[in-house]
Amino acid sequence: MTDNSFILIPSQQMQERFAAILLKAGFTNDRAKECASIFTANSVDGIYTHGVNRFPRFVQYLKDGFVQPHAAPSLKSKFGGIEQWDGNLGPGPLNAVHATQTAMQLAQEHGIGCVSLANTNHWMRGGTYGWQAAKAGFVFIGWTNTTGIMPAWGALDPKLGNNPLVIALPYKDEAIVLDMAMSQYSYGAMELAVLKNERLPVAGGYNLKGELTNDPAAVLSSKRPLPVGYWKGAGLSLLLDILATVLSGGLAVHQIAQKDVENCLSQVFIAIDISKLGNHSMIANTVKGIIEDYHQSIAIDAAKKITYPGERVMQTREKNLANGIPVLKKVWEGILEL
Amino acid sequence: MTDNSFILIPSQQMQERFAAILLKAGFTNDRAKECASIFTANSVDGIYTHGVNRFPRFVQYLKDGFVQPHAAPSLKSKFGGIEQWDGNLGPGPLNAVHATQTAMQLAQEHGIGCVSLANTNHWMRGGTYGWQAAKAGFVFIGWTNTTGIMPAWGALDPKLGNNPLVIALPYKDEAIVLDMAMSQYSYGAMELAVLKNERLPVAGGYNLKGELTNDPAAVLSSKRPLPVGYWKGAGLSLLLDILATVLSGGLAVHQIAQKDVENCLSQVFIAIDISKLGNHSMIANTVKGIIEDYHQSIAIDAAKKITYPGERVMQTREKNLANGIPVLKKVWEGILEL
Repeated sequence: MTDNSFILIPSQQMQERFAAILLKAGFTNDRAKECASIFTANSVDGIYTHGVNRFPRFVQYLKDGFVQPHAAPSLKSKFGGIEQWDGNLGPGPLNAVHATQTAMQLAQEHGIGCVSLANTNHWMRGGTYGWQAAKAGFVFIGWTNTTGIMPAWGALDPKLGNNPLVIALPYKDEAIVLDMAMSQYSYGAMELAVLKNERLPVAGGYNLKGELTNDPAAVLSSKRPLPVGYWKGAGLSLLLDILATVLSGGLAVHQIAQKDVENCLSQVFIAIDISKLGNHSMIANTVKGIIEDYHQSIAIDAAKKITYPGERVMQTREKNLANGIPVLKKVWEGILEL
Repeated sequence: MTDNSFILIPSQQMQERFAAILLKAGFTNDRAKECASIFTANSVDGIYTHGVNRFPRFVQYLKDGFVQPHAAPSLKSKFGGIEQWDGNLGPGPLNAVHATQTAMQLAQEHGIGCVSLANTNHWMRGGTYGWQAAKAGFVFIGWTNTTGIMPAWGALDPKLGNNPLVIALPYKDEAIVLDMAMSQYSYGAMELAVLKNERLPVAGGYNLKGELTNDPAAVLSSKRPLPVGYWKGAGLSLLLDILATVLSGGLAVHQIAQKDVENCLSQVFIAIDISKLGNHSMIANTVKGIIEDYHQSIAIDAAKKITYPGERVMQTREKNLANGIPVLKKVWEGILEL
């Protein structure tokens, strides 16, 4: 019988454990700490799929040579507020943090900066870079391509990536962060629903008969997850892939799909320095006004607060920092063996 | 009995008729021609809702003083590749063409340019500006806010705008253009389905009982259209409004919703000059490779070609330029009386 019990791991302990494993896997001390802090922060924020639960696979990719622990991004081309970098197959989160930082520096100089990254690895949680830029006072728009996971609209075979799009901006001392993949549910979310024997809250894709269904197992067997907004999300996924590929000079979804693992990804990081805008002194109040109106929405269920993207993350963060991060016991035991 | 018959109007004739009406409504000759050409091109491309069918309302807004025929945008603030403009309530399409042109000029200088526009009017079809930039060799990302038309996720009252997002880039001698509103169906599309006594192809919103439905009349009476991808499109709509408002220093959806008509909109126009990218000589081939792979998708219905955003527009354009633009007889008769 499977042990599905959870244990609570203090964030400090998780981070130290991750850093020690990354050191052993060939990281320098500084890079081990930085990468460990990202995996830990994602877990603290409740994005376990791209935090603690994903960490063992990241370590395996290091061991298999898909992720190069010492590789840092190198500048390929530059013009004004645009820079194209090669990720050199370094750790995805470190490459993405660097690209976000560089986009912010370009934005300080040009008002807006756009950094693209070719040949990088999975950035884990896209929201990480939205929070990074927004907490530093920038508007952020970024996205990545992925391997093919869903069909074009009207098609059967998975030509389109999940291509998460991140949009973020500062709000109070925190941030508003949208982190949105192009399928209604990730494979991870559907697999979890199968394990829990749950139906999906809304249709997540098609069954083998081509009917829309809330049955996660049926979608997993058809391999036809639903794009957000049907044809609309399918179109947006295609455009995000084309732009990531064109802007970075890297690989497109159809090329990544031919690889043994999902790497050599293409990513875009756009930052806007709002302190350079003519209305910069009014922006905090403007956003406050929008959110206050939004919060006055009439909720269908009075017990369920209407939240903006990123709002619930902050509640989870507070809870996990206070109580420790809930981790499946077997997952943590696996990590202790790495 | 309603006469639902169509007549075919040659594009040249439509454009001349529109220009003559705009001249009479106070436009200068050049601006009348330019604005008429946009309404005509939208109709040629098959976007009748934001072309010929919308023209009478545009003229009414001119007569009512909501749209100022002589007003041109004025620069409010500038830093590097970013400019903030006031639309001064001029004609939305002319303001948006000007903003797109300015974003492209900034991109030539800085690689990337971002123009925002406060206090503008409805830009009609967002794709217009995607085509404009892409045909000139630029990547384009742009969006507008609107009045409130759909609820936040989990809410009943319409706090969120439809906030169309446009992403475009050059392809062969034409363009790939995504033009995507944040509701699954527009009110216009649902009203048309009611008139034709048709169900919506997929759920378009909620009925008064709070159930998802394909019945357009039920969605119109609940005023709860579905955001694309449920909570995801709702979140994207909110972020696009916040960014348009912050970047332009203009009004947000909740402020526009308090007006008698939908004006004083906030818009963003981002252009990237791909001729400045290190890989610029390879980009045409890169995009061709992605589209060729995409076109090889296995279609569910072999008779239905898998098309990229903008592809079917070109077929409609060719047909309408050859045969004339199909217009409801009563719509054209109304225009002849303006």
